[in-house]
Amino acid sequence: MLQAPPASPGMPEDEIDTPALLIDLDAFEANLDTMASRLAGSGTRLRAHAKTHKSPLIAHLQIARGAVGQCVQKVSEAEILAWGGVRDILVSNEVVGAAKLARLAALARIATISVCVDDATQVAALARAAAQAGVRLGVLVEIDVGAARCGVRPGPDAVALARLIAASPHLRFGGLQAYHGSAQHLRSPAQRQFAIAAAADGTRRTVEQLRQQGLDCPIVGGAGTGTFELEAASGVYTEIQAGSYIFMDADYARNLDAAGQPVGLFRHALFVLSTVMSTAQPNVAVLDAGHKAVAVDSGLPVVWARPDLHYVGASDEHGKLEFADPAASPALGTKLRLIPGHCDPTVDRYDWYVGVRAGRVECLWPVAARGGLS
Amino acid sequence: MLQAPPASPGMPEDEIDTPALLIDLDAFEANLDTMASRLAGSGTRLRAHAKTHKSPLIAHLQIARGAVGQCVQKVSEAEILAWGGVRDILVSNEVVGAAKLARLAALARIATISVCVDDATQVAALARAAAQAGVRLGVLVEIDVGAARCGVRPGPDAVALARLIAASPHLRFGGLQAYHGSAQHLRSPAQRQFAIAAAADGTRRTVEQLRQQGLDCPIVGGAGTGTFELEAASGVYTEIQAGSYIFMDADYARNLDAAGQPVGLFRHALFVLSTVMSTAQPNVAVLDAGHKAVAVDSGLPVVWARPDLHYVGASDEHGKLEFADPAASPALGTKLRLIPGHCDPTVDRYDWYVGVRAGRVECLWPVAARGGLS
Repeated sequence: MLQAPPASPGMPEDEIDTPALLIDLDAFEANLDTMASRLAGSGTRLRAHAKTHKSPLIAHLQIARGAVGQCVQKVSEAEILAWGGVRDILVSNEVVGAAKLARLAALARIATISVCVDDATQVAALARAAAQAGVRLGVLVEIDVGAARCGVRPGPDAVALARLIAASPHLRFGGLQAYHGSAQHLRSPAQRQFAIAAAADGTRRTVEQLRQQGLDCPIVGGAGTGTFELEAASGVYTEIQAGSYIFMDADYARNLDAAGQPVGLFRHALFVLSTVMSTAQPNVAVLDAGHKAVAVDSGLPVVWARPDLHYVGASDEHGKLEFADPAASPALGTKLRLIPGHCDPTVDRYDWYVGVRAGRVECLWPVAARGGLS
Repeated sequence: MLQAPPASPGMPEDEIDTPALLIDLDAFEANLDTMASRLAGSGTRLRAHAKTHKSPLIAHLQIARGAVGQCVQKVSEAEILAWGGVRDILVSNEVVGAAKLARLAALARIATISVCVDDATQVAALARAAAQAGVRLGVLVEIDVGAARCGVRPGPDAVALARLIAASPHLRFGGLQAYHGSAQHLRSPAQRQFAIAAAADGTRRTVEQLRQQGLDCPIVGGAGTGTFELEAASGVYTEIQAGSYIFMDADYARNLDAAGQPVGLFRHALFVLSTVMSTAQPNVAVLDAGHKAVAVDSGLPVVWARPDLHYVGASDEHGKLEFADPAASPALGTKLRLIPGHCDPTVDRYDWYVGVRAGRVECLWPVAARGGLS
């Protein structure tokens, strides 16, 4: 069942039922604007990643600020965006299985749909699905630029796949998918520069080899919140796929700049509001938000604006706070904001965003593609 | 939005859309029966924990085999069970905040509702909520028997709280909540015996002190899948709160018996069905199930019936399999069952259970309280 909304517009933040997923609207809008201004004049376009927000409404806010469309990872996410009026969607991932491909092809009747491949049999499967639906699908070749996960090697293997795509009357060769996921979380700028320089080199070489075969790349896509300025400056990437920048999380906040300080380009805009539900143990307070309420795959959450309180352990429904000074103990019932360790999977645990500004609830937005795994 | 069901009854397992949450119905029913037979004649009753399954339907299957009711952790879970006809529900947790307490008290009009406290101010808050709703709530005192999370100390602190409860005309003193969570996952039987012996000692002492004050404990509750036979044999616990036994997971399967072998009392009955979506890298296959699809808080999933395939890394939407022998490589499109590292939070990521038997889909059951965090 869909969960009931935890708040209503006009309500003070302190009355929101917990756990709840909060957007600080001022910080969120500042993040949207910062990304738009950073990419203005860079020669790269933003195709923001909806795996973070799972919301057509947020997609439209990004598009209104210049994004050319959206990325998704799953067909179910593409469906929610297309049904919500997003006109240009790239599944930045492989899609395998006839039933899923039929769903994907059906969407191409109402939006421009592209998808990635790293295997020749998938080119044939996509062509069949497109032919059956009477549509033409954009298809990008995914190349492995360092993640060692999906993708063929840059160079001739990629060119061979691109030629197969271009030879199909039901497919459009859409370019290259060249995302280096693990580079996003390298802590020093030197590490990130080294990783993205290598990714850009392999990508550039592949683009040139394709051009020699008469194949242009409408999209050369990649980059996330951790490295997007490097891809934007590379001269080879044309589209930036950052997602987390709208919210930021505790993990991204550990990325450092050349001075060894947090990069600080984007603000924390996403929080899990939680309530202190037990203070029975000395120097411990227990929150009502454990790892069902806040993702812990990239580290534990951090308590917002309370450096004296340390979230030290998450069980299913409990979060344990410790503090050295007994005077720091939050009273039973105190509501505290948590900065999630990882924003994307945290969002996916909720049905509702609660937008807050100046201490009051301004809006409720559905996390429309929550649970969109397929 | 609620996700569309990934299958329909009669479909072969291999046609189920992925990722999907599968119940092997034969194994699941065997687990239900095993627990019922283990507790028969033990003097303890089962009050199975719905935090695992989040389903009134599964609750009724447990009750039909002798369970006295259900435990939940959250008011939103209690609502779903009560609305689904479950008549006796214990919130085995503290509930803080006037809005939540009003919801809880409202449920007491259609079911027997109990809840835990570990703070005197909460006794007063519960009494107010019950008085306003015109109901009487059962209230248990939670004692800390080793988890160092919620709960007052066994002994006089617990007795003082119990006396406060018993003095309120709107509350019933319901007994003691004495759950030792971390003991469930101690690997050796000697470790588990040591932990539960200490928990039972503190609980027994508190029960005796309460009796000296004229306070009987209708419920002395605790125990999980890892230790329930110890609590059942203790002579002090009256209710067993195991939940995971119905499904089992990879983490519980690491508990050992006296011979150093996996305990093996319950069978793996819960799986995430996933599809191989990329085989572009040597000695790697990538699945469409990452940590948005299968919880990793208690370790990575294990591939069912394929010891040659190792799930070595989860990102948001990808699971990475490695294998030493290139001949072991699963073909693109192969569907593989994963045993989740942790069943409870994995269930909470899905809207639908797909019940399978003898290779075919038999039923679709909603995960009715999915996302019930409040």
